[in-house]
Amino acid sequence: MLGQTPLFPRIFGHEAAGVVESVGEGISDLKVGDHVLPVFTGECGECKHCESEESNMCDLLRINTDRGVMLSDGKSRFSIDGVPINHFLGTSTFSEYTVVHRGCLAKINPLAPLDKVCILSCGISTGLGATLNVAKPKKGSSVAVFGLGAVGLAAAEGARIAGASRIIGVDLNPSRFEEAKKFGVTDFVNPKEHDRPVQEVIAEMTNGGVDRSVECTGHIDAMISAFECVHDGWGVAVLVGVPNKEAVFMTKPINVLNERTLKGTFFGNYKPRTDLPSVVDMYMKKKLELDKFITHRLSFSDINKAFELMVKGQGLRCIINMEE
Amino acid sequence: MLGQTPLFPRIFGHEAAGVVESVGEGISDLKVGDHVLPVFTGECGECKHCESEESNMCDLLRINTDRGVMLSDGKSRFSIDGVPINHFLGTSTFSEYTVVHRGCLAKINPLAPLDKVCILSCGISTGLGATLNVAKPKKGSSVAVFGLGAVGLAAAEGARIAGASRIIGVDLNPSRFEEAKKFGVTDFVNPKEHDRPVQEVIAEMTNGGVDRSVECTGHIDAMISAFECVHDGWGVAVLVGVPNKEAVFMTKPINVLNERTLKGTFFGNYKPRTDLPSVVDMYMKKKLELDKFITHRLSFSDINKAFELMVKGQGLRCIINMEE
Repeated sequence: MLGQTPLFPRIFGHEAAGVVESVGEGISDLKVGDHVLPVFTGECGECKHCESEESNMCDLLRINTDRGVMLSDGKSRFSIDGVPINHFLGTSTFSEYTVVHRGCLAKINPLAPLDKVCILSCGISTGLGATLNVAKPKKGSSVAVFGLGAVGLAAAEGARIAGASRIIGVDLNPSRFEEAKKFGVTDFVNPKEHDRPVQEVIAEMTNGGVDRSVECTGHIDAMISAFECVHDGWGVAVLVGVPNKEAVFMTKPINVLNERTLKGTFFGNYKPRTDLPSVVDMYMKKKLELDKFITHRLSFSDINKAFELMVKGQGLRCIINMEE
Repeated sequence: MLGQTPLFPRIFGHEAAGVVESVGEGISDLKVGDHVLPVFTGECGECKHCESEESNMCDLLRINTDRGVMLSDGKSRFSIDGVPINHFLGTSTFSEYTVVHRGCLAKINPLAPLDKVCILSCGISTGLGATLNVAKPKKGSSVAVFGLGAVGLAAAEGARIAGASRIIGVDLNPSRFEEAKKFGVTDFVNPKEHDRPVQEVIAEMTNGGVDRSVECTGHIDAMISAFECVHDGWGVAVLVGVPNKEAVFMTKPINVLNERTLKGTFFGNYKPRTDLPSVVDMYMKKKLELDKFITHRLSFSDINKAFELMVKGQGLRCIINMEE
């Protein structure tokens, strides 16, 4: 997500769900048999971020793409023929069994189907929370979503749940629109089809700008457009996508001064352990629709086919059964 | 405030208080004898901004430095020897009598001393509201204020009222600090005294950044510093100062993505007619201190001395009695 350091051998995988098989010494908040979502970022519960109601950027367990070992002793729990294998994002879920820091495990409703709610452990919660927790559109409002991949569609799903009456999807690939309709997207804008900035197109469509926007591409131009397309006086733009390190966000100060708000979010502002159980419950109560995100299912032995689908941009989420 | 178009002859002046002497046809919400604050921006009560709870940027009566006439008929109400004299900011208060659109007059508590609450009709409310209505610091939090003129000190006064435990004043002029102490400023940073960006200095002083910042200089470097000096996870930066038209706000997207918020405000987000009466009452209840902003008093015939004080940067607010 934030650029990866080559560290091999390594067990990848981070979006998953599972059942606790054993717990370490002194662990009292999890027990054998608990259903859990492993999360790539954590919640130690004790740092100033965990103590803040507003932040989920735990100092201890914040995403770290470079670390390949457990925090407690700096060692790996995986090996093959005595050679250690690195962990990945503290989760390493392309594996039948893994070892995870207790702060990176959200205990969830045991009735929730693991082969569905597993997708809540990263991208879907990221997009959903960006809208529900950060952009917070009101009922009847307008929301623009930049990028209609799984994260963007989850942002649109959040707008649908919040009761937005108009959801404008922005994507360079017009083939995304048909699928996006299932997620409540009502209008589609392809920047390639216009000879002026997309923020101007959106402002014209909406009599001055959308009430909220959520940027899920990570392209710097889209980030700037997402900010400038919100209405003055009350518009809020939320940035989700991560751009390359050289990118610079630029805008005329008057765009800010005219009472626009720019916010960034990480994992949809969800605190993994505190908040994910309620997202699972939102699905159980049929308020949140997850099935439409799951476009493919494969067995572990076919995992390379799943990567091919991803590279080709086909489908949204492919569920892999690690036991097949 | 936003750059002025030369339009002469013209009656200047916009920060004032007065008493209604007469009302036009059909006016029912104001009557002779009402005490009022004329405001450079207005509240028509009917446009989408006035209908929004979040905006005070009235479509009809928003600040317009170019207009020299009344909205209703496009004519001036002032003349000398038959030659029309232009209005200024819809207020023209350097005059014993003026004519103002009803949407630009806030009816206030008649017990409030006009020679004090007059300063609430522009700058002081702008700074105060930027903190109280937009930055919203919590009790015990830290707030950085960029620029320690009257607007910045009003922002500091807002932080003091909100119960901030640490208020860091940033100014290039160290002589401002002594006065700033009266407004609750606890720490002072002069960017000239450091060989690294002031945001780094503030981050070091506060173990990662302040909880809130308010930018009141309008210098683009200060705007960027004000944004980057807030803590990741929960920091909110509010821009008040208006820069020159060529300025561009630039920051690395990661500064946003790490859960910082950037907001702009205009007139402290106060709706003139709806909200100013409560600001006057805040003063009457001794919650808001105004006297410390009033450093000079002069008669109208000495108004040019007041301009000299302003140009020299001496004092904060000079009250002019228009009847002397």
